[in-house]
Amino acid sequence: MPFATIADSNPIKLCVVIVGLPARGKSFISQKIVRYLSWLSIPTKSFNCSTNLEQILKESGTNADDLFRSNYASDGEILNKTRDITLEQILDWFGNVAACGVAIYDGINATKVERDRLNKTLQNHGINTVFLEAYCDDESIIETNITDIDSTSPEYSKFESLQDTINSVSNKIQFYSKAYQTLTTEDEGDLSFIKLINFSSQIILNHIDSYLKSRIVYYIMNLHVKNRYIWLSRHGESQYNLEGKIGGDASLSERGVKYSYKLVELVNKYIPNHDKLEVWTSTLKRTQQTAKFLPYPQKQWKALDELDAGSCDGLTYEEIAEKYPDDFKARDDNKFEYRYPGGESYRDVITRLEPIIMALENQENVLVITHQAVLRCIYAYFMNVHQEESPWMSIPLHTLIRLEIKAYGTQVTRIKADIPAVSTYKERGTSKLGESSNGTNIMSGSVISGITDKVVI
Amino acid sequence: MPFATIADSNPIKLCVVIVGLPARGKSFISQKIVRYLSWLSIPTKSFNCSTNLEQILKESGTNADDLFRSNYASDGEILNKTRDITLEQILDWFGNVAACGVAIYDGINATKVERDRLNKTLQNHGINTVFLEAYCDDESIIETNITDIDSTSPEYSKFESLQDTINSVSNKIQFYSKAYQTLTTEDEGDLSFIKLINFSSQIILNHIDSYLKSRIVYYIMNLHVKNRYIWLSRHGESQYNLEGKIGGDASLSERGVKYSYKLVELVNKYIPNHDKLEVWTSTLKRTQQTAKFLPYPQKQWKALDELDAGSCDGLTYEEIAEKYPDDFKARDDNKFEYRYPGGESYRDVITRLEPIIMALENQENVLVITHQAVLRCIYAYFMNVHQEESPWMSIPLHTLIRLEIKAYGTQVTRIKADIPAVSTYKERGTSKLGESSNGTNIMSGSVISGITDKVVI
Repeated sequence: MPFATIADSNPIKLCVVIVGLPARGKSFISQKIVRYLSWLSIPTKSFNCSTNLEQILKESGTNADDLFRSNYASDGEILNKTRDITLEQILDWFGNVAACGVAIYDGINATKVERDRLNKTLQNHGINTVFLEAYCDDESIIETNITDIDSTSPEYSKFESLQDTINSVSNKIQFYSKAYQTLTTEDEGDLSFIKLINFSSQIILNHIDSYLKSRIVYYIMNLHVKNRYIWLSRHGESQYNLEGKIGGDASLSERGVKYSYKLVELVNKYIPNHDKLEVWTSTLKRTQQTAKFLPYPQKQWKALDELDAGSCDGLTYEEIAEKYPDDFKARDDNKFEYRYPGGESYRDVITRLEPIIMALENQENVLVITHQAVLRCIYAYFMNVHQEESPWMSIPLHTLIRLEIKAYGTQVTRIKADIPAVSTYKERGTSKLGESSNGTNIMSGSVISGITDKVVI
Repeated sequence: MPFATIADSNPIKLCVVIVGLPARGKSFISQKIVRYLSWLSIPTKSFNCSTNLEQILKESGTNADDLFRSNYASDGEILNKTRDITLEQILDWFGNVAACGVAIYDGINATKVERDRLNKTLQNHGINTVFLEAYCDDESIIETNITDIDSTSPEYSKFESLQDTINSVSNKIQFYSKAYQTLTTEDEGDLSFIKLINFSSQIILNHIDSYLKSRIVYYIMNLHVKNRYIWLSRHGESQYNLEGKIGGDASLSERGVKYSYKLVELVNKYIPNHDKLEVWTSTLKRTQQTAKFLPYPQKQWKALDELDAGSCDGLTYEEIAEKYPDDFKARDDNKFEYRYPGGESYRDVITRLEPIIMALENQENVLVITHQAVLRCIYAYFMNVHQEESPWMSIPLHTLIRLEIKAYGTQVTRIKADIPAVSTYKERGTSKLGESSNGTNIMSGSVISGITDKVVI
């Protein structure tokens, strides 16, 4: 039996139907929800209406400009077809891929009639619905959104200038605005909905009647669009690292201590406003020793402790392969779900990291000094790395990692301390560790749109 | 350095100012917030205006009926004095008791002028504010609330009949209604507020600008007033229990196996609607073996695993006292905060249990089969047991515990299986375990208003 986590406490089919005019931040919110819920192991997928619309326009040889210059008709053939296809994709996904989970219907869903129809069809298929409206009448937010769309949305990459994007988006806004009906409790009080007004300065919640819905609301409340940095580092090289042992509570090696001195320099040089920095460590010695010389407020979190290797704690991978060959193989086969006897799996680590992620969404100027597996999980959240890949990412020692978090993506910069360290990276199917991590390791991970990974120094 | 938990991620002084006419469920919400945040180790205290009002009326020899028959005057002497005293109590608490934490100003706070004044004063003292309005125009909810008040509120215990309570509350409602101004974004858009409409069927959030506030909202969203049962049990007696050892992953003893059979009977006999029961266990053998014969859907939660005794895992208390005398004493001195080397503290367990509590707030008909320390933490939440006492509660083996959760309190019933078991209860200052738990142990804990503990069989 798989172990239950938050994802399983109330397994339901839920469709989050996005509502909102163009440039209201709909895709930002959809993407964030997909990333967060997927990270928590809840099957989640976004279905984008405008991608489908583009395809239909192409196939029918219709010019988008012509469509958007016409009058909006809720039952117009092209829009109807777009909606049908999106809905079919969702029903198909629930029917054939995800027995439970969250589908996001990312579209305009402009009118009461359309929403009512959608709600009823989903209900008939045993799918719960919550409407999520991104309502915005603050022109400055809309302008910022258009600029963001221009620089990040593949849909607008064909335009050469920002002005072209502005014109195109404005046409669309005009087209949909004429028909658009905002969600109100007076008119659609029977629907379960979340209405975000001007990002989330005001939120109206109507019939939020399940745990999963409340969790989505909680997450959205904690989102910010402000660009900011989060800083990450593994502890310095430890005695156990030198001996190839996992787990334990060893002290730093001589080179590890060097890194702890060097880290002060790196922070001074690379972290702007470091006078306001806060340093988070785990409760284990090696992270606290690494933070020792940093003259900033420090917090120790149990949730940042390394993945608990249970009965394998203190062993080398070779010893594990010898003593527990079945476990060794099982872990290689499914590293995300595998739980050390009496210890933890990556999935377990994510469960306990969730409050840290929520706190990080509210923070800037934090340096998190923690452990390989924990950093993989934090990194996976910010970089949207799939759970099959995340336990295999190589995150080298003696490297300060900068996450630049922007509305539509995260950019990673690695700052190497130039202090040699052993590699603690074990490839699948072997019990040997990699070469020295000084300059040779690559932090892998799926690079999605708007997310890049670069190395400095 | 104390270890950081969710409570410390953004330590602030926050005052939750309750707004609402009488019988709107204000005290229910205040009490729940106090209980939840205190359980999470966030210093939280509710300051009740009507208690202060009663005192002032008494001192000034004024009859309450006379006051409530007069016309409401925002600046009336008695109400002004009541507000001043409540505010002083809060400022005093932040000044002298809690450097950070949450004060709840539980009052009517009927008018814009009063709220504006309060907001400014709190702000001047460096205290964040969020207003929490319980708005209700559903007469059936109000009637239920009055009945609840009659049976649970000490303020109304002096009345002999429900009708007397109804008359008294109705007078108060009339008195405040004339002046009452509900919170709207149009009129008080600058305030940070949560407006609950008809319990929480609709919620309006305005400027929820901190993690702690979002957490309070999330918690409120998950509250239900429906009366329901939660069922708890420790695993059956284990081999380790027999040997006096802590931790480990031992199997059940012979008597433990007997309990697992007996549990089926108890469930059949005592749990109504047991055909819809769900059973939650930890990932450890002894809980799963205890649940083995229960023919209901089962979920295994890592979060329900026993407190991790780290390097003391598998030892007896005598061995711990001998091998680690300092640790043994430190644990007795502060059992809630003490963390076993490489293991956990009660505080750590509460942090990982939080999602379970949130799931339980959304559930009924669950039987949770888990471990002594974990049960203490779950029990402490539902029974509002202070964290200094909760690690010392005795929760006997081979006993099915029924929590009857009502709006204004939880009632406990213990159903003994009549199968002998060792005691696993260690008193402070000794390494010896208690007598056999068959019929001798008492589940202690502070019995607060509306909460009782009774034993059947």
